[in-house]
Amino acid sequence: MKQIAIVGVTGLVGENMLKVAENKGIENIRVFASDKNTGKKLHYMNGFLTVENVQLLTERPPDYALFATNEEISKVLVPKTAKQGTICIDNSSAFRMKKDIPLVIPCVNGATAYGKKIIANPNCTTIQTVIALYALKQLGLQKFTAVTYQAVSGAGKNGLADLLSDEANLTAFAHCIKNNVIPAISGFAKDGYTAEEHKLMQESNIILQMPCLQTFAFCVRVPVTVGLSVFLNVQLAKRFTISNVKKLLKEQPCVQVIDDKNNNLYPMPKDFAGKTDVGIGRITKDKTANAVNMFVVADNLLRGASYNAWEILESISDGKL
Amino acid sequence: MKQIAIVGVTGLVGENMLKVAENKGIENIRVFASDKNTGKKLHYMNGFLTVENVQLLTERPPDYALFATNEEISKVLVPKTAKQGTICIDNSSAFRMKKDIPLVIPCVNGATAYGKKIIANPNCTTIQTVIALYALKQLGLQKFTAVTYQAVSGAGKNGLADLLSDEANLTAFAHCIKNNVIPAISGFAKDGYTAEEHKLMQESNIILQMPCLQTFAFCVRVPVTVGLSVFLNVQLAKRFTISNVKKLLKEQPCVQVIDDKNNNLYPMPKDFAGKTDVGIGRITKDKTANAVNMFVVADNLLRGASYNAWEILESISDGKL
Repeated sequence: MKQIAIVGVTGLVGENMLKVAENKGIENIRVFASDKNTGKKLHYMNGFLTVENVQLLTERPPDYALFATNEEISKVLVPKTAKQGTICIDNSSAFRMKKDIPLVIPCVNGATAYGKKIIANPNCTTIQTVIALYALKQLGLQKFTAVTYQAVSGAGKNGLADLLSDEANLTAFAHCIKNNVIPAISGFAKDGYTAEEHKLMQESNIILQMPCLQTFAFCVRVPVTVGLSVFLNVQLAKRFTISNVKKLLKEQPCVQVIDDKNNNLYPMPKDFAGKTDVGIGRITKDKTANAVNMFVVADNLLRGASYNAWEILESISDGKL
Repeated sequence: MKQIAIVGVTGLVGENMLKVAENKGIENIRVFASDKNTGKKLHYMNGFLTVENVQLLTERPPDYALFATNEEISKVLVPKTAKQGTICIDNSSAFRMKKDIPLVIPCVNGATAYGKKIIANPNCTTIQTVIALYALKQLGLQKFTAVTYQAVSGAGKNGLADLLSDEANLTAFAHCIKNNVIPAISGFAKDGYTAEEHKLMQESNIILQMPCLQTFAFCVRVPVTVGLSVFLNVQLAKRFTISNVKKLLKEQPCVQVIDDKNNNLYPMPKDFAGKTDVGIGRITKDKTANAVNMFVVADNLLRGASYNAWEILESISDGKL
């Protein structure tokens, strides 16, 4: 039986990775965190797992390691671990733009992960957006516009804490998010776009293997704990009907189309928190271009991070976990 | 001294209309509401105003009346009141699409209001969006895309109550808005767009007097009490620079440009609640078209409703209030 490590297990994404493992009934799991959390006992199945110090990861290397660590830690720890023979799947942005490291959503470009020692997990916003785009690929993707509504949990436990905090006690955000929306996620690049926006644009080009696809992203934080929503406009080369688009979306694995205007049904964060599917609804024709509009919702921690990492692992291990 | 009535004074917009009157030091005010609130005493300046029953409005007609009533009530009461010689400014959507009734934002098309007995106040979303668009008119407006983040107070006091309620006790929305976003405001039209989206698109064409301007709107409710935000992409005919756009926006009355990426400054609902200005920031060049992006924020009750109604009144009364 292969041994799998979850590194950074005490963060929100790490916790979710462990929950997914439990749901899958994976037995040979080891969990790692930094000094502060070393030695902690975590409930797992009918027993406990003891959190090991990350320093031990390379001493007794597991077969696979899922990293839910931040960029700085991943940058150092992932290559070191991979050198010991462990196949590493990293959730940070440390390796996403590296030419020789695949950036993978299994149902889109899973084949690029085979035989690689390090595999990068895309940003949460990218995953749900690209899954929707990929479903429409045969209609000729030309350009997309994504405007987001992002949960505070995208910034980890500090983000959740900030939702309850006043301006003076913030730890994750530059401004109070309680009863507010913040139109900037991560730092700014010189062109006035944020790092989050650049991630969504660049990662989409890479995963879809369409460097010429025109992309636009505007990312906003909203006072919601879990669940990321994206307004998505997709300009297409071929003529299409809405029923055609719905059919293609329904055929896409892990997409759930919820679009019933007579009963006020559409996907929302509250309904997709805890789900591994991507919800898509409010599908309309753009009257100003050959484009389709939709609202795309997913659990940013689960679908957008931990579950995708597990899907990568399952795809490269050929079911032998 | 002219006599001014506020009709529907116990609703959120009516309350705001009265607050504006108080700030302006308007003395000859009468206030009206339905049976339920008739006789109530409202603090005003150093005294009280007694709420009169709406039935009395036409018996002793005031010179001007600001209506903060709903569509059904306005449809009946506004024409009846206008017939008595009162100049009526209506905040509902009852008259916005009527050819002979002007739909007015004073700094944009104020001249259309002169000599009219009934004047329609635009939707809150329209007002801040059109003010931003109008500032750029000399660059040749071709198309706009608006994606919104709308406060619950847009649905009145019931909307505010729903922000604290569970699914079972909702009075304003089809779904729980607490810890959620709802990608639909008002009912659906046959084309799959909502009434709110149609309002924003159609009202903009009318007020800007540009029936051929291409418009797109996608409207979403977010768990925020007051403050409406719009991501706005504006396609322009003429070449422009960002500093050119900023200059034009700064020259527009009631616009405040807040755009300092080095200090994480941009407009947000929390900062514009209670303000009469429209905040604009996150101004960037669209890399895929000759278009500019921006984030446009305003107080939906004040800037988006009551203050605009007062500005209409001031403009048609030539300062003689």
